[in-house]
Amino acid sequence: MTGKSSVGCAFSAEGSRLFQTFNPVKNKSNPTIFIEATAEEVDRAVDLAQEAFSILPTISTAQKADFLEEIFRQILIVGDELLDCFVSETGLTVERAIAERTRMSKQLHSFADLVRNNTWREPSIDAGDIQRNPKKPDLRKMLVGIGPVVVFGASNFPFAYSTAGGDTISAFAAGCPVIVKSHPLHAGTGELVANAIVAAALKTGMPKGIFSNLNAIGLEVGKQLVLHPKIKAVGFTGSISGGRALFDLANSRMEPIPVFAEMGSVNPVVILPETLAENNENWSDLLADSITSGVGQFCTNPGLLLLLESLETTIFLETLVTKVLTTEAAPMLHTSIIEKFESAKQAACSVPFISINEQKGEIPVNAVRQTILTVNAAVFKSNPILQDEVFGPFTLVVICKNLNELEDSVAVLKGQLTGTIMGSVENSKKYNSIFTTLHQKVGRLIFNEVPTGVEVCSSMHHGGPYPATTDSRYTAVGTDAIKRFARPIVYQNFPEELLPEILRDENRTKIERRINGERTKRAVHG
Amino acid sequence: MTGKSSVGCAFSAEGSRLFQTFNPVKNKSNPTIFIEATAEEVDRAVDLAQEAFSILPTISTAQKADFLEEIFRQILIVGDELLDCFVSETGLTVERAIAERTRMSKQLHSFADLVRNNTWREPSIDAGDIQRNPKKPDLRKMLVGIGPVVVFGASNFPFAYSTAGGDTISAFAAGCPVIVKSHPLHAGTGELVANAIVAAALKTGMPKGIFSNLNAIGLEVGKQLVLHPKIKAVGFTGSISGGRALFDLANSRMEPIPVFAEMGSVNPVVILPETLAENNENWSDLLADSITSGVGQFCTNPGLLLLLESLETTIFLETLVTKVLTTEAAPMLHTSIIEKFESAKQAACSVPFISINEQKGEIPVNAVRQTILTVNAAVFKSNPILQDEVFGPFTLVVICKNLNELEDSVAVLKGQLTGTIMGSVENSKKYNSIFTTLHQKVGRLIFNEVPTGVEVCSSMHHGGPYPATTDSRYTAVGTDAIKRFARPIVYQNFPEELLPEILRDENRTKIERRINGERTKRAVHG
Repeated sequence: MTGKSSVGCAFSAEGSRLFQTFNPVKNKSNPTIFIEATAEEVDRAVDLAQEAFSILPTISTAQKADFLEEIFRQILIVGDELLDCFVSETGLTVERAIAERTRMSKQLHSFADLVRNNTWREPSIDAGDIQRNPKKPDLRKMLVGIGPVVVFGASNFPFAYSTAGGDTISAFAAGCPVIVKSHPLHAGTGELVANAIVAAALKTGMPKGIFSNLNAIGLEVGKQLVLHPKIKAVGFTGSISGGRALFDLANSRMEPIPVFAEMGSVNPVVILPETLAENNENWSDLLADSITSGVGQFCTNPGLLLLLESLETTIFLETLVTKVLTTEAAPMLHTSIIEKFESAKQAACSVPFISINEQKGEIPVNAVRQTILTVNAAVFKSNPILQDEVFGPFTLVVICKNLNELEDSVAVLKGQLTGTIMGSVENSKKYNSIFTTLHQKVGRLIFNEVPTGVEVCSSMHHGGPYPATTDSRYTAVGTDAIKRFARPIVYQNFPEELLPEILRDENRTKIERRINGERTKRAVHG
Repeated sequence: MTGKSSVGCAFSAEGSRLFQTFNPVKNKSNPTIFIEATAEEVDRAVDLAQEAFSILPTISTAQKADFLEEIFRQILIVGDELLDCFVSETGLTVERAIAERTRMSKQLHSFADLVRNNTWREPSIDAGDIQRNPKKPDLRKMLVGIGPVVVFGASNFPFAYSTAGGDTISAFAAGCPVIVKSHPLHAGTGELVANAIVAAALKTGMPKGIFSNLNAIGLEVGKQLVLHPKIKAVGFTGSISGGRALFDLANSRMEPIPVFAEMGSVNPVVILPETLAENNENWSDLLADSITSGVGQFCTNPGLLLLLESLETTIFLETLVTKVLTTEAAPMLHTSIIEKFESAKQAACSVPFISINEQKGEIPVNAVRQTILTVNAAVFKSNPILQDEVFGPFTLVVICKNLNELEDSVAVLKGQLTGTIMGSVENSKKYNSIFTTLHQKVGRLIFNEVPTGVEVCSSMHHGGPYPATTDSRYTAVGTDAIKRFARPIVYQNFPEELLPEILRDENRTKIERRINGERTKRAVHG
């Protein structure tokens, strides 16, 4: 590990601002000194990215797919050094590091398949007709990369949402060069993954501008990147304040560009009383696990439970609170995250008429006390601050007197990544209004399962109405994430020789295309 | 014609601000008095739209498709009154009115087909697997409407881009209620079309909030609509200043919403000398028609020609200028559009070293003189004002000394709806850099045809990088326009009974779905 940035696949360290990462378990800084990128290094990375963007369309899809798969091979070569670094920079376990690395592998391989197959380009052909009056033009459309992309890594997912995470890989898959603004809390993990990407790029013959990894502890590097005229899109995972600031910055440009910010969520869970009567133990186990897993540091963490007042509810909550508060506390990612947690928790706790349950006894260094607040629906409705996410081991329980109050509580919710209903099919008609309202608020509607655990597959949607994300039409997980970084282009009246291969008459690779409005694998004149 | 707005499918006129439309051929106001909608009427329209949005998912796709087709039947019933009104409010010919009505019909029918078929929802299923460790969740994704949509009509397309134009119809097709901010220059045409939509909505049993048409001469109604928390997207066709103002307004909201503004373009045409040597007459005819058609009031009007200096070029330009300047002048849409044209033209003409060719002789009332400016590449490059669109009968010709100058001139271009190359396949390698650069700037790349004439079909892309539009990933024309108003939602672990029909195991309607990543028409367990 060098502490250097990578600019166009080459080490670079021209700056003088230095920083270190932090081991929350050992409560001390890690040894490597990182060097923040300079304004000149940022400019060079962007210029090289633009150069690479013009070259990428001439490189075969097979070669581009190989690049993605080679990245994971190179990551495996780094081996234990990478896992150790992940653990030392996050305080998370090595099991978690391995699980997240597996997820990164799955992402790389599924995007490699996508690139090889090429149907993600949505080829669409309307053949010309010179007999028609007026003559019908020949139109052939497909998706192409939008341009150089900037990715901001997530503090809580150094592998799956950072350097070689979903944003970077989906942008590569779309034919976009990527500049990663490395997350300062895991700059070492970032550098080791970046080195793997560089090795893969060089081995598979990619243009060197396809990738840069820039170190930064301050905000300047990120701002300069987002404002650079050659940058065409931004991927971000983090807080609402951070995501919104980038979104506003990007929209202040002469040419505004899309910012795909995934900003978390309180992930409401509605638990209906009939359910609890039957499955109390099962639901409380499932939910307690989901609430405490990863020290609550997941964007799909269930931060809000909505229940109807009943004897079953009281019993259920007692069990749940006991299970959650007796789960062993563990260090959070960083002292700065602890500070944010404590201040957001304090704000919620200071709302009048709140009942507070907090973990007792000794806790490890850099851990916080798991907290469950309980409040009635009227207080919830009249205190908007209670709808804000408290990132960490924190859950708010809202008790509703009746269905009306439950409906009102769901109605005031903002946009969410997920919304969960625990109930029975038999009673679903009775609660139809809850389904309808929640449907309009969320990206993923869950029935009798917990929101944590985001499956990487083509049917996943990890997104949702604002403030869950800045654009509800896109997912950050799964192969459809490629759509964020692609735009359509039409070739009108182009001779075969000048068309990209997948738009030519023959359809040599036998992929599905839309011809005159119908999906088919046939040739244009077949 | 009443001069009233429609609020939730019912006439309403509670305001006191009055206005009239204008007949540019007769040079006088049309008789009907229109009443601007009040803030209360705006609120009522939005509340009703939100109500309708919750009801629409319960209405069958067949019924929704019938609604779209019934709109056109109702428009035909209005008959000549509508065509006369179109002509009296635009100064355009009745032939143009009929042609545009045909295009509106085509849009309505193609979106009706889309709604019936339902594949636009992109159903995607990843079946669950309880054997896997950890258990694989059952995930079923499809697109749903984004919420109530506001549409601003275009001055230059009272039918195809206004009240029942592509924005409105694609939003309806996605299951979104629409509130049209009627264009004040053709408020009468707007009302007659709105009445047809209302009649169709009532006849086919749509919820009344599905449609409102609000009259306004000022900016207040539009602003209130864009800022209303229940509005979830905006469609606009018009000027860069208007589109950008709406975009900035929408992004200033607590919850930002997408604005799909199609803001026009200079539509560069690169004419290579080898082409001219052979087809001088043909190209000059085609281009002269394209430049003068519709008094230049098309967003695909070729406003910029780029040529290499040569004898052929000189001969070609002489022919072209003669043809364009001898085309009969006709009235523009409105005196306010004439004022903008004259001031933008004046700004371009005042750049030093510009050669000006202007139509001579008598011209009709409210017409302007067709203008062709010629300039060399160095002057073009150093005067950014020459890249701005002059909406109307105006074209700028840039003469480049050599390929380098041509490359530079293409490189400085902003985002465009279209880019055209007139050349030969044989010489395309020689001009490869022109193809590559233009590719990155445009939504539609045309070879040896003119940019005017936007075919309504599934392979059309009417969009492009900023400032052609505010989002290069979307089209305003063709069935893919529906994607602007739809977002994905996933149902996780939902029992069959609670799933929308197209996500159930059986696939009763035999549509193509993506199952475990593969496109198929089979049942989930088939």
